[in-house]
Amino acid sequence: MKQGNVLVAQGGGPTAVINQSLVGAVLEARKFPQVNRVYGALHGVAGIIAEDFLDLTQETTHNLELVAGTPGSALGSTRDKPNEAYCANILKVLIAHDIRYFLYIGGNDSSDTLRIVQTFAQKESYELITVHIPKTIDNDLMVNDHTPGFPSAAKFVASAFAGVNLDNRALPGIYVGVVMGRHAGFLTAASALGRKCRDDGPHLIYLPERNFLIEQFLSDVQSVYNRLGRCVIAVSEGIHDENGTLIATKLPGEVEHDAHGNVQLSGTGALADLLTNTIKTKLGIKRVRGDTFGYLQRSFLGVVSNIDQREAREVGEKACQFALWNDASGTITIHRIGDYSVEYRLDPLEAVAGKTKVMPDEFISEEGTDITPAFRAYLAPLLGNSMPEVFRLRAPVVPKKLG
Amino acid sequence: MKQGNVLVAQGGGPTAVINQSLVGAVLEARKFPQVNRVYGALHGVAGIIAEDFLDLTQETTHNLELVAGTPGSALGSTRDKPNEAYCANILKVLIAHDIRYFLYIGGNDSSDTLRIVQTFAQKESYELITVHIPKTIDNDLMVNDHTPGFPSAAKFVASAFAGVNLDNRALPGIYVGVVMGRHAGFLTAASALGRKCRDDGPHLIYLPERNFLIEQFLSDVQSVYNRLGRCVIAVSEGIHDENGTLIATKLPGEVEHDAHGNVQLSGTGALADLLTNTIKTKLGIKRVRGDTFGYLQRSFLGVVSNIDQREAREVGEKACQFALWNDASGTITIHRIGDYSVEYRLDPLEAVAGKTKVMPDEFISEEGTDITPAFRAYLAPLLGNSMPEVFRLRAPVVPKKLG
Repeated sequence: MKQGNVLVAQGGGPTAVINQSLVGAVLEARKFPQVNRVYGALHGVAGIIAEDFLDLTQETTHNLELVAGTPGSALGSTRDKPNEAYCANILKVLIAHDIRYFLYIGGNDSSDTLRIVQTFAQKESYELITVHIPKTIDNDLMVNDHTPGFPSAAKFVASAFAGVNLDNRALPGIYVGVVMGRHAGFLTAASALGRKCRDDGPHLIYLPERNFLIEQFLSDVQSVYNRLGRCVIAVSEGIHDENGTLIATKLPGEVEHDAHGNVQLSGTGALADLLTNTIKTKLGIKRVRGDTFGYLQRSFLGVVSNIDQREAREVGEKACQFALWNDASGTITIHRIGDYSVEYRLDPLEAVAGKTKVMPDEFISEEGTDITPAFRAYLAPLLGNSMPEVFRLRAPVVPKKLG
Repeated sequence: MKQGNVLVAQGGGPTAVINQSLVGAVLEARKFPQVNRVYGALHGVAGIIAEDFLDLTQETTHNLELVAGTPGSALGSTRDKPNEAYCANILKVLIAHDIRYFLYIGGNDSSDTLRIVQTFAQKESYELITVHIPKTIDNDLMVNDHTPGFPSAAKFVASAFAGVNLDNRALPGIYVGVVMGRHAGFLTAASALGRKCRDDGPHLIYLPERNFLIEQFLSDVQSVYNRLGRCVIAVSEGIHDENGTLIATKLPGEVEHDAHGNVQLSGTGALADLLTNTIKTKLGIKRVRGDTFGYLQRSFLGVVSNIDQREAREVGEKACQFALWNDASGTITIHRIGDYSVEYRLDPLEAVAGKTKVMPDEFISEEGTDITPAFRAYLAPLLGNSMPEVFRLRAPVVPKKLG
């Protein structure tokens, strides 16, 4: 129950609900008598180094509630990966501003950042409580049933494929949609939740949990096209060949890496174009279109799951409660305890830091190009209560007179 | 008041509300005593040739209402452009099925198709009423204040840029979003309706109504980047150089044309990649990302303007009323008669057939890279009553202790 200040920051890629977690933490922190001030660092750890803080104790509750409903990271974010020197500077700033509780909202890269800072603080014998608040549309954090941000992005992807399937039914051909998710296929698999009737797309789903073999891909596409006269395909940006080499890195041109050593996969349509050109050339099909969903799937205004909003708010609140009631450091994790209900626990940072969860085999069909009913049962409740439904004409056919 | 059958068909690219027009026409047609049957042709004129009709007289009203709320063309669509022989076959089928009222929902290519069919029917002295029901996300039909389908696509584009702007504020850099619209800039200009604060993006908007000069583009981008440390850019797929050559056709690789002779602009990320690579190379800015909004902007499930829904329904109904009360052929046009209110008129097909409306000068800022308040006033009411709003933190800055 150390008297001092609370610092909240946001790291990594923004989501539709990351501000819910921010506001959950801030509103809760403002209630505790041992808290003098609640600060927000601009642009994550980079803003800590620069001492770029907002005093969120002086923000109106009303505006905080409005910001909670706004996508993106309201405090700004960063891709910086702190090394030892960087951590030493962070600690100097925390001490200078009497920060005793540091809450960092982010994915597995951000939790790793927090783990390093915490280790460094202990070395310096500075009393500091650090709690990691989970966030990532990739849904790739260990221990967690799922992660805040993923359900809303999944709703975007499912809605996009539901619409694209109708478009492709109207003007038949081949459609390839490239989805985010890095090394985890959860977000790409969410495309299947846009299906309703048996012949709805996506008809093929390529996940990074399986090897991507171009000859098998072409054969799969030809087979669906022969059967339906069209084919809608969902492809993860993280697909790789049997040697683990990313298909995206086989493209001509330079490959960009971020500070964490990750290959830059988004922000280009090159993978979709490679696949559509291959289909055109090798299969001789004329109408072949490719889209890369890009930044829309994590930032689109107005597409959000109400379950995701609720849980993102609660992980922020819980982080604050563990830190301020219990003086406990760690990472907040989400556990499914019913159908559908969750509870939140505090786990050691090491349980999630720098690790990646991928889709379990039970969620992937035997041939590797579809999901299972188990995955549908897992994802369906997360999409919330406002997923739109599509309908078809079912009128009888008129007998021909001439033909 | 000829006794006979009604045929409804859908042509060109699907929209979020084209089924509203279909259902408006069908429900209205079923009320008239001189109508024996209401047929729907599958895949537009191609389905007429093949006699692929559904008997929509036998579809439930309840299901029709559900289909009305579903995006895409429920009857299927086509890109076929009928020539004389094609028209002769269409007429044979219309006669064989005793079709006396032909309602075709589509854009300027579809209205031109209808004009040719109508001319041909007159030559053959077959009594046929044809009415064109307007539809296009490009908003490029003459005479009309705007076209059904455009407001919902505009809402998608505005929502996408509102979200992307927040994402880009959180992780600053350059962002290029490529938007549909062919030779008309309306849909790209809609990106500006996602702005709220003065420094919100899109900071630059490139429309096909102005020449695109790469050196000027680079200078514009550098200038915004110097001022804000970031830059969000909206680019129309139809941008062209001072000779009218499409920038998209300057890319390496084959250029695809449709049956109407239009260059295939969508379904590839190549234009965005060309622009982002040019910025990286020429300006040396590191974080440069490009998205191509692609088919999502015309098909996305769940993003629709309620004004657009209402008007798309009414143009379908009105088409039916002009045909069946007045035995009148032509094209339904939308006219703004208040702020905000519209009325529908019947104009000669020649007024819209095969012509393209582009953005008037009064909607484009002097420097050519932004919209005017007049365009905002024009578009704002069309987006309907459920456009989400974004909010920022406004807390005071904390004084630095170290730096």
